[in-house]
Amino acid sequence: MCQMDEIRFCLIGAGRAGLVHAKNVVHNIKQASLTAIVDSSRDVLKERGEELGVGSLYTNLDDALSEDEFDAVIVVTPTFTHRDIVVKCAEAKKHVFCEKPMAIHVRDAEEMSRAAERSGVKLQIGFMRRFDPPFLQAKEIVESGKLGEPMIIKSVGRGPGLPPPWTYDVKESNGLLGEVNSHDFDSTRWLAGGEYDRVFAEASNRKTKDLLKEHPDFYDNAVVTVRFKNGVIGTIDGTCPADYGYDARTEIVLTGGLLSIGETKGEAFFSCDKKGVIRENAHRSWKNRFKDAYLDEMRSFIRSVLEDKPTLVTGKDGQAAVAAVVAANRSIREGTPMEV
Amino acid sequence: MCQMDEIRFCLIGAGRAGLVHAKNVVHNIKQASLTAIVDSSRDVLKERGEELGVGSLYTNLDDALSEDEFDAVIVVTPTFTHRDIVVKCAEAKKHVFCEKPMAIHVRDAEEMSRAAERSGVKLQIGFMRRFDPPFLQAKEIVESGKLGEPMIIKSVGRGPGLPPPWTYDVKESNGLLGEVNSHDFDSTRWLAGGEYDRVFAEASNRKTKDLLKEHPDFYDNAVVTVRFKNGVIGTIDGTCPADYGYDARTEIVLTGGLLSIGETKGEAFFSCDKKGVIRENAHRSWKNRFKDAYLDEMRSFIRSVLEDKPTLVTGKDGQAAVAAVVAANRSIREGTPMEV
Amino acid sequence: MCQMDEIRFCLIGAGRAGLVHAKNVVHNIKQASLTAIVDSSRDVLKERGEELGVGSLYTNLDDALSEDEFDAVIVVTPTFTHRDIVVKCAEAKKHVFCEKPMAIHVRDAEEMSRAAERSGVKLQIGFMRRFDPPFLQAKEIVESGKLGEPMIIKSVGRGPGLPPPWTYDVKESNGLLGEVNSHDFDSTRWLAGGEYDRVFAEASNRKTKDLLKEHPDFYDNAVVTVRFKNGVIGTIDGTCPADYGYDARTEIVLTGGLLSIGETKGEAFFSCDKKGVIRENAHRSWKNRFKDAYLDEMRSFIRSVLEDKPTLVTGKDGQAAVAAVVAANRSIREGTPMEV
Amino acid sequence: MCQMDEIRFCLIGAGRAGLVHAKNVVHNIKQASLTAIVDSSRDVLKERGEELGVGSLYTNLDDALSEDEFDAVIVVTPTFTHRDIVVKCAEAKKHVFCEKPMAIHVRDAEEMSRAAERSGVKLQIGFMRRFDPPFLQAKEIVESGKLGEPMIIKSVGRGPGLPPPWTYDVKESNGLLGEVNSHDFDSTRWLAGGEYDRVFAEASNRKTKDLLKEHPDFYDNAVVTVRFKNGVIGTIDGTCPADYGYDARTEIVLTGGLLSIGETKGEAFFSCDKKGVIRENAHRSWKNRFKDAYLDEMRSFIRSVLEDKPTLVTGKDGQAAVAAVVAANRSIREGTPMEV
Repeated sequence: MCQMDEIRFCLIGAGRAGLVHAKNVVHNIKQASLTAIVDSSRDVLKERGEELGVGSLYTNLDDALSEDEFDAVIVVTPTFTHRDIVVKCAEAKKHVFCEKPMAIHVRDAEEMSRAAERSGVKLQIGFMRRFDPPFLQAKEIVESGKLGEPMIIKSVGRGPGLPPPWTYDVKESNGLLGEVNSHDFDSTRWLAGGEYDRVFAEASNRKTKDLLKEHPDFYDNAVVTVRFKNGVIGTIDGTCPADYGYDARTEIVLTGGLLSIGETKGEAFFSCDKKGVIRENAHRSWKNRFKDAYLDEMRSFIRSVLEDKPTLVTGKDGQAAVAAVVAANRSIREGTPMEV
Repeated sequence: MCQMDEIRFCLIGAGRAGLVHAKNVVHNIKQASLTAIVDSSRDVLKERGEELGVGSLYTNLDDALSEDEFDAVIVVTPTFTHRDIVVKCAEAKKHVFCEKPMAIHVRDAEEMSRAAERSGVKLQIGFMRRFDPPFLQAKEIVESGKLGEPMIIKSVGRGPGLPPPWTYDVKESNGLLGEVNSHDFDSTRWLAGGEYDRVFAEASNRKTKDLLKEHPDFYDNAVVTVRFKNGVIGTIDGTCPADYGYDARTEIVLTGGLLSIGETKGEAFFSCDKKGVIRENAHRSWKNRFKDAYLDEMRSFIRSVLEDKPTLVTGKDGQAAVAAVVAANRSIREGTPMEV
Repeated sequence: MCQMDEIRFCLIGAGRAGLVHAKNVVHNIKQASLTAIVDSSRDVLKERGEELGVGSLYTNLDDALSEDEFDAVIVVTPTFTHRDIVVKCAEAKKHVFCEKPMAIHVRDAEEMSRAAERSGVKLQIGFMRRFDPPFLQAKEIVESGKLGEPMIIKSVGRGPGLPPPWTYDVKESNGLLGEVNSHDFDSTRWLAGGEYDRVFAEASNRKTKDLLKEHPDFYDNAVVTVRFKNGVIGTIDGTCPADYGYDARTEIVLTGGLLSIGETKGEAFFSCDKKGVIRENAHRSWKNRFKDAYLDEMRSFIRSVLEDKPTLVTGKDGQAAVAAVVAANRSIREGTPMEV
Repeated sequence: MCQMDEIRFCLIGAGRAGLVHAKNVVHNIKQASLTAIVDSSRDVLKERGEELGVGSLYTNLDDALSEDEFDAVIVVTPTFTHRDIVVKCAEAKKHVFCEKPMAIHVRDAEEMSRAAERSGVKLQIGFMRRFDPPFLQAKEIVESGKLGEPMIIKSVGRGPGLPPPWTYDVKESNGLLGEVNSHDFDSTRWLAGGEYDRVFAEASNRKTKDLLKEHPDFYDNAVVTVRFKNGVIGTIDGTCPADYGYDARTEIVLTGGLLSIGETKGEAFFSCDKKGVIRENAHRSWKNRFKDAYLDEMRSFIRSVLEDKPTLVTGKDGQAAVAAVVAANRSIREGTPMEV
């Protein structure tokens, strides 16, 4: 591995999020190339292959692993498939970049970590907020102690568009808290610098009542209180679909001050009309809000592989977020706080 | 009462908050005058009397009620005294403006409301946020339905300076959630347009550990999830002392958009130094942040009395906030969600 | 004068701006009362008299001066009348608060100053920005030298609504630069800490072309460069009518940083709709933007009278602004920079 | 030219700005490659060659043109060299991307345009603001007429760091207005949608007085009024060095509203300390503020070449900015407005 100076990637799952990673690998990162794509849909494969200039296209992961030569995989498939795919790739000695959430169940996440360890391959989870400059600034100030210790952390994660149908059964998918707010569960833990103690969640279904008949557990809004073992407390809230845009903000109250990460508005521009109404645009998509962070997390992963260093977002981080999400969903069902 | 065109007030409790109301009555409201002041401290009485130009000064409420002529009282004493004072004043046929929180226990608040009703006097609780232009704008948009229905409401209440010693025993005072976050419990209910269903709270003591020996329940940080009977969910959080300033902000996620009330910064000014560091100042005090709202709530109370109309913040509103605060404190003690 | 503890005012000119001052005197300032009003319109007089609770109403200044008892006048009449009124009042030993601009011609302003000096009465010009907290903060930082010396000052003054008809003849009124941007000419000089050297102005008529036939000089937009004798340079620009609102902002580039005074938006509130459009409201009126400053300038004037101290905005300040405005208008006419 | 699907570039001038373009070509744009570098310094050449993976390195443009194969050049040398280099490259049938300012004298700029036309090669000037999303939004709204017609345009260009020594002689370099504010002269003209009529400028030297002995004309601050033939008026101001950061903002007053482009702060993050001081960071460099715009202007240039379409920023645009800058500098020298 020591002589490598470029990573050859196989993209597994060529949807919207997969494309973001693939484009970064193809266009924006010198030390990386994309040599193969796996997706269950032949149409998607064809389109992405042309778009990205990749000829090795597979509808089957096993074929890709046996026929093609690559060093690492980017896993961007539905969450419930992560365990099997990641374990298989790790066993085939491929380094793994796995999108969040890591898995549906904690035991799955643990199995994935173990597989990577056994094979000696790198495993990184796609919590890109950890590479976002405002989040990094906050982390640095928290760790410096300049503003004292964190007391309360509040994290918001809202997104436009309904999650995909496979998420409707919350027990099988972890729902909104898993698919959208995994980021908040991870970044809050990262900023708190401790492990979750217990969580309590309230959820409601306000915009997708038509789904309730078939999926009585489905919720599109949730608020959560969290408590960490080190005494930090906080809130996480999620809304999806939040038509107005993609909103990811965090606020930290410290013993000696306050930190504020992110803004609802997404641009340094406003107009004002005759009536004195000032207009700005909200962030509309994670692709835009975290554009640089997506690039930086991949660069970091590549560095970890090339320099044989630990990844900055480990399987353990992924597991911790899964554990908190699972506990929060159980709290919703049982109406009582849950230890994580 | 119909012929009245000016309200003569007696101020009961001449501390910092009492002074704000008194100054508004004396300097800023034409239809009001301050004729008497009651305070247990002779020194405070003397100082305020001179400052406000008031000659009738009492250390005893009964004396004031029997000797002096006034139409209404402004009650700004410690919360645990509200019930006795308000009941007595109501029975003496004085209209009552009572600072928040209304009372320590729900039964006390109920008794106060009944006393006012029996005597046919007006009763208004000092939830001045309901008179603040940004809060009023939000309320108007929520009620208009222009952005759909509220789904999540998040309310922040933080203040500098430790609360007074009588608040250290949380069971007797309702602590931070009572003294500081009563406002949030009221404004969230007002904006939600419904009644509280249940609350869950986490609290911690991070800056005042020295108080724990004598007051093991004392907390200086709290996060709360709230659920309303109409399906709205939300969070309330409080920190006191929050050295950095006075921070009262609220955010409402609606089915068709978002509303944001308030800002941490308190001025339309910034400086930037050689190193590119931009500096602005946070709100430092409620006196400044809600200056106009304090004036407007008193003007509104006076109008209610002069025009014999219901007050805009009733005893029922006060009771509802007390009930939610009490439930939240019980939730902290018992570690489980509480019905309100 | 030493025994006075209250100032009795006569308001001269009971229009919109006069009402702002009158209300402050009547409702908001303890040491002041309004005893008489002078206005040429009987209807306005009657309405204001009732509104403000003033019985002594005059259509003629001489009558007011001979019949009524007051200590000071507030002059809020059209600019071209200031000289005669102020000189007469000063000669009658009345202290004078005179709205901006001080006068149309420099010689008029000088005459007013001399009349006040001769009679030993106070004279203050209504440059309320000097009492606005953000402007005061900027002034303090400039004077402290913390950010070095000012190099460039840029000042914006825009307002909704067309100026009154008597302003259409620019030679007789000084037009937009006089009526609106006098404030900018004063505050820029105050912040620069020096005297004007020369100015150059460009003007255009873009929204009021119908006025050009009768008033070929009338302009509704202007940009000006200014140079001070101490080396500070800057720009002033004005637009009126600027339908979108009232916009008064200033920016100072210093050798060691930047200061920014004011914002276009006028509130700490935003809404965001389904399409991700964030909406805030611009300041709509000077009455709101400078509410506290109007009150504070009057309080300061009263203090100057009661304590027999110099006013904080003197006749000399008024003259300097008139001189710069006159030079800027001449620059527009002659197409060349003008010494002030 | 029709068959080309990739542009091979030669970079001429491998300094800081050259590196930005080179990196975009090498790392971020698929349809482009960098095959050669020309720079007068062997050390710079070596370093850049390694950094960018380019083997063909020349200290002499003629050698590069005769020996190497490339389709286009990126000219990032000192302004006074642009004419000779661009004419030579155009005559050698290379497409030319030339950094701003286009030239020192208008006749030079014209000659460059004519050379490109004669040879049938594309010529694009590096006014990247035209590719910046906030500037593009403003342009679109102006052109849509939604907010009426522009009346006043105000443009700010400030940067940290002293310009290079060859700029000290303003007559030979056009100084600050040329090197820094060329952008403002171009974007203001673009947004105004018309041609310059006349300009007037004031300049001062406040931070670099040591340069005055040898370069008595050198200024580090300037304010300019501009007038366009279509009646738009405006201001441009520049400061360099402005230690606090890189500040590029524009404001447009229209008949029906206001547009605001850019912000001084460069991030969506703030901290607040115990004293209530909120801190944010200003933009520190053009490299960061216009990162995406630099990439997009190069992509656009490449598209123009590959699809044989006119470039979006033409030689004519470059000439117009040079003409306005030259007139502004003459205005400084002669103290009178200058026709452009």
